[in-house]
Amino acid sequence: MERRRTRPVKVGSITIGGGAPVSVQSMTKTHTHDVSATVRQIEELTELGCEIIRCAVPDARAARALSDVRKRAPIPLIADIHFDHRLALRAIDAGVDGVRVNPATIRNKEGLRAVFRSAAAARIKVRIGLNSGSVRPRSGLRVKTDTNKTDVAELMVREALKCCRMAETEGCRSLVLSFKASDVPATIRAYRLAAEQCDYPFHVGITAAGPPETSLVKSAVGIGALLAEGIGDTIRVSMTGPPHDEVNAGIAILEAIELRGRRGPEIISCPTCGRCTIDLQAIVREVSKRLEGCPKRIRVAIMGCVVNGPGEAAEADVGIAGGKNFGYIFRRGTKRGKVPAPQLVDALMAEIEEIP
Amino acid sequence: MERRRTRPVKVGSITIGGGAPVSVQSMTKTHTHDVSATVRQIEELTELGCEIIRCAVPDARAARALSDVRKRAPIPLIADIHFDHRLALRAIDAGVDGVRVNPATIRNKEGLRAVFRSAAAARIKVRIGLNSGSVRPRSGLRVKTDTNKTDVAELMVREALKCCRMAETEGCRSLVLSFKASDVPATIRAYRLAAEQCDYPFHVGITAAGPPETSLVKSAVGIGALLAEGIGDTIRVSMTGPPHDEVNAGIAILEAIELRGRRGPEIISCPTCGRCTIDLQAIVREVSKRLEGCPKRIRVAIMGCVVNGPGEAAEADVGIAGGKNFGYIFRRGTKRGKVPAPQLVDALMAEIEEIP
Repeated sequence: MERRRTRPVKVGSITIGGGAPVSVQSMTKTHTHDVSATVRQIEELTELGCEIIRCAVPDARAARALSDVRKRAPIPLIADIHFDHRLALRAIDAGVDGVRVNPATIRNKEGLRAVFRSAAAARIKVRIGLNSGSVRPRSGLRVKTDTNKTDVAELMVREALKCCRMAETEGCRSLVLSFKASDVPATIRAYRLAAEQCDYPFHVGITAAGPPETSLVKSAVGIGALLAEGIGDTIRVSMTGPPHDEVNAGIAILEAIELRGRRGPEIISCPTCGRCTIDLQAIVREVSKRLEGCPKRIRVAIMGCVVNGPGEAAEADVGIAGGKNFGYIFRRGTKRGKVPAPQLVDALMAEIEEIP
Repeated sequence: MERRRTRPVKVGSITIGGGAPVSVQSMTKTHTHDVSATVRQIEELTELGCEIIRCAVPDARAARALSDVRKRAPIPLIADIHFDHRLALRAIDAGVDGVRVNPATIRNKEGLRAVFRSAAAARIKVRIGLNSGSVRPRSGLRVKTDTNKTDVAELMVREALKCCRMAETEGCRSLVLSFKASDVPATIRAYRLAAEQCDYPFHVGITAAGPPETSLVKSAVGIGALLAEGIGDTIRVSMTGPPHDEVNAGIAILEAIELRGRRGPEIISCPTCGRCTIDLQAIVREVSKRLEGCPKRIRVAIMGCVVNGPGEAAEADVGIAGGKNFGYIFRRGTKRGKVPAPQLVDALMAEIEEIP
């Protein structure tokens, strides 16, 4: 899958764009001024695989905490700024690795210019991050589409590119852009549109995507669709839930589209049908449980019958292809034995243990 | 989002392709010869929104049951055939609405021709359904890609199109094609490749996608990415779990990409951050619970602060935009009141109840 060519932008030790691996980021849900709680959450998220963290900076108290958070955070820290450009200036002074500004909420345009100048001087990146929710109410623009609705995608892209021109004028070219709508088609439309018009890397996500169950599908569809087109340099899954779930979901999306190696075993298992004579669902549940925390990056095929079983099992590192109340065990294409159904899980686990 | 132009293919009362709505299908996991259990499962899945059902036909006993299943099934019935073309002929005689054949498992090519002739005479559709697992072992072909691996995508498309020519020769043009790999990029590659070469509608899915948690992300990414490119006329999510979860996931994917109206309320809610001073996660959980089973197709925004809150709340049918220990209630863009945090859920639900 060919990726969109973007210019590389450094954020601390991480590069966004320019062919760098797509990074996973999240945002703390603690009060930023509570340094201990914030740092603890950042450490937990880092442990899970989060690579860039963002903290809200709603007031001076939060801005003052940034310097301490920055010193103790193991990954690059981005300050999230709305409304008041002075908070961005303070964040830059505090030594953050980047700031995110939303030009739709910062009305003081001279102030915004000062932020870009300050970021350029500090050699840190700025994300120009538009959201459907903030661009909608304040904009007098009403772009009409063929469905005769305001096209929030066009509004976001227009605002962002206008802001890019402003940043460039101030000497700031370390820019990352985002255009997040709460509906998937508008988000996809915005990123596609912007991809034609600039070479800045994109931070991709669906905003206000809802509780975990809802967000998982919306985010996987939206972020996945863009990544499949080569669009997206860093991603954030937004969920009304623990940030840990956001990080896990982000990594799972990258794993699914194979932009990141798996953290552990991948289970390939069939849905079962009227053809299946072993209790495959129970086998898969048991194997999944026993493989929890296993760091081996192997492909484990657990297939119910001879239709796709031998083929998938042959391509996998280890596999079961079910027969009539028994199963064949495979190891990298070689049949290792015929095992009665009740012993299949043990036999499979024994094979997996032998793999270095 | 423009959809790929495909020829319409009728399956009982449902049209696949030709601009028809993308349909959701699943497969029974009962033994097909157990007519009562099979029909009961089909009825349950229909209730959830499943529009086409497929049953495995591994033997003569299953084939004999098809006629009864067909009579009692409320939605079109497809017979799933591998290996033995005679089972397909029996299924057609039993009056099924379509058959699925996998040319990679049916070695008797004259037999396969007879199936296409019989389907043409019965005026029913045939799905030519390739899977990575069945195409891999039997094919002597080893197509090399730039990554120097066998490209299972090319193999599947080549086999399917060869089979289309055979079907056309026998007068059968009611064809639906599928190319399902157990990895997402190969699946996407196959459908893109085939889309350039024919106008038959596509049945889209990721095969052997694993247990529900794994499958949900892989399927949402893979099916979602294809739908976002306009590819896909009917979908099936494969999960090692209850078929009910497959149907729910399929519908959720179509809802996310807005190819289908929502079954009930959609919750737009922010992930919360250091800016949020109300317990938004608890509010979202409570509202989700209270809205369970609600048939109103409304957009409910539950936003933690003033950044995107008023914007999303204004665009939604009803909404909360959180403030400092209170929240504003919105109704279609109009502010309805300022409510203390503990009463927000009740106030929101009262607004929702007023909506007809």
